[in-house]
Amino acid sequence: MDDDEILLTPGPVPVPAEVREAAARQVIHHRGAAFHQLYASVRSRLLPLFGGSGDPFLFPGSGTGALEAAVVNFFSPGDRVAAVVMGEFGQRWASIAESFGLEVRRYEVEWGKAPEAPQLAAWLDRNGPFAGLLLTYNETSTGAAADLPAIGRLARERSLPLLIDAVSALGGMPLEAERWGVSLVASASQKCLISPPGLALLWVAPGAWPQVERAGLPRAYWDLREARRAGERAETPYTPAVTLWYALEAALERIEAEGLESVYERHRAMAERWRRGLSRLGCSLLAEERVASPTVTAFFPPAGVEAPELLAALRGLGVEAAGGQGPLKGRIVRVAHMGEVGPEDVDRALELLGKALARLGAREAKA
Amino acid sequence: MDDDEILLTPGPVPVPAEVREAAARQVIHHRGAAFHQLYASVRSRLLPLFGGSGDPFLFPGSGTGALEAAVVNFFSPGDRVAAVVMGEFGQRWASIAESFGLEVRRYEVEWGKAPEAPQLAAWLDRNGPFAGLLLTYNETSTGAAADLPAIGRLARERSLPLLIDAVSALGGMPLEAERWGVSLVASASQKCLISPPGLALLWVAPGAWPQVERAGLPRAYWDLREARRAGERAETPYTPAVTLWYALEAALERIEAEGLESVYERHRAMAERWRRGLSRLGCSLLAEERVASPTVTAFFPPAGVEAPELLAALRGLGVEAAGGQGPLKGRIVRVAHMGEVGPEDVDRALELLGKALARLGAREAKA
Repeated sequence: MDDDEILLTPGPVPVPAEVREAAARQVIHHRGAAFHQLYASVRSRLLPLFGGSGDPFLFPGSGTGALEAAVVNFFSPGDRVAAVVMGEFGQRWASIAESFGLEVRRYEVEWGKAPEAPQLAAWLDRNGPFAGLLLTYNETSTGAAADLPAIGRLARERSLPLLIDAVSALGGMPLEAERWGVSLVASASQKCLISPPGLALLWVAPGAWPQVERAGLPRAYWDLREARRAGERAETPYTPAVTLWYALEAALERIEAEGLESVYERHRAMAERWRRGLSRLGCSLLAEERVASPTVTAFFPPAGVEAPELLAALRGLGVEAAGGQGPLKGRIVRVAHMGEVGPEDVDRALELLGKALARLGAREAKA
Repeated sequence: MDDDEILLTPGPVPVPAEVREAAARQVIHHRGAAFHQLYASVRSRLLPLFGGSGDPFLFPGSGTGALEAAVVNFFSPGDRVAAVVMGEFGQRWASIAESFGLEVRRYEVEWGKAPEAPQLAAWLDRNGPFAGLLLTYNETSTGAAADLPAIGRLARERSLPLLIDAVSALGGMPLEAERWGVSLVASASQKCLISPPGLALLWVAPGAWPQVERAGLPRAYWDLREARRAGERAETPYTPAVTLWYALEAALERIEAEGLESVYERHRAMAERWRRGLSRLGCSLLAEERVASPTVTAFFPPAGVEAPELLAALRGLGVEAAGGQGPLKGRIVRVAHMGEVGPEDVDRALELLGKALARLGAREAKA
């Protein structure tokens, strides 16, 4: 990427120079005192992002790896599992669960919308019992976010383990995992955590370990029992991606310095700024205001402009945005406002978007 | 690690500054032209290390991940598999295969030795048939290397798929995977490839794809069929650890510049230099000359010196070496001569080892 390119793809996001420099540090052996310190530092800095309790673990991996890890550590062959599918990533998680021989029942939500807790509760009661509920907290493919406190409540009322995909949420949206009744969180390093890709993150609620111990699916690489045992001596079961740990440590220090509440508030404000700007440019928003994601926004171009041509025009102006997936392929444009994004970044991107639309002959909507 | 520390652990190994700087480059989106170029560059630079043909794949992962990937992509539940166990990593691979429900028969070799092809052939004929043979090419826990051409020949004669762990071999020892009858190679970035840890490497022989297609074990993250499909458009199935790809590209350029044959010859020469120096210092070598690894050497300290106290004395001098594992725990010291190691590095390390032994009261053997 040239320095003057603008990366708006919903992950990976631009990584601050300080974080990239940390990734360039010399490697250390992962069975010595220096690594033990790094382990403790990353663990304690990560915990507030999950809500302050429980156990976070890092694996060399991607977000998809974290989703697979969640499945193999919680379930047994043939288990019936409920999966909320509100976009591409919910779909991916359900497919992974099926690959491992689980019986998956999908609660389908129109792409761009989020599940309504009462309807979901009724569906669960009608179709259960289930060994667990898989939920995408923030659907990167649509820019819709689930009402996690409400769904956590209904899961808890049913003693239903709730596993969430927080890949594009962690560090950008409030999360009180234990208090909200979440059993496991799956995430990754390259989105709101402003780090290079290559780390899968898992978090396990204190009360969820008996289910992890009981789970009968085959597991070795992703085995959380081994990760927990090694973690007691501040180590990992096998070679960690240590330079990515350094990067994540530096990134978490930046998040800490800004203050977690400020970071969340900034994400909310930038989402709002994008949505206002897009409406002004005559674009229509995919997700309604009340389910709008603080980290990703998806929109339809103004009438007469096709999403693929808009993406190409943006690319011509040095802006890399993303298109739609699944049923939205070719129909929408997605922009991320994750990580260290401020008002001037959003305004600059909106200005270039206006320019791209003008080139394509779209008239600006009246402000 | 301080700059003046000497890291002799058998992975990770010190990463050259140029490679670390490459890892600090800004991330790019993995569905664009810049990544397509990177993919092609890394692929073409990796191929000669495997022998020039076949398909290499990178996953965010570790060597252990590569071993799991090998298992899930080649076998079906209940398959009978033969595993040569000549140390900790052979043991680990056999255990992973068992975790996934395979029936594993172990061909045990005394730690520090390597399998003799005729005996192994007879054992396979007596105990077969098998769906595959797992072999550690270079046993990092003992510093013994297998006679891969001979074992490849016997596997081919029996149409037995041969899967090898080349984690501490790839880029440091000759490999002609297809010509030698290897079906799959598993490796990782942080050893002879002088890159940071975090990439699992898989190589598949052209003729092995039907077995990969047939394999019935559950797989999603490690699915080589998906990696192959995405590879056709120079992409990965999910977010790659792109900064580690940059590092690996820079590392492979360095290996190319030195010349692969020179790199192999240097590794052999440095192993020889270590072995001579260790004998001079009164240490006894675990592996016999004819099976000695070009990348790792394990030795017993002179009589009267315990391995753990020697490791501690070395640490006091700024040298990080490794101890023994399994039955060799507390008995041996292991040093790596992987990556960009030259005569002056070996001599400096031997000098410090001599100093550590002197502090512990060992008399130097007569040269």
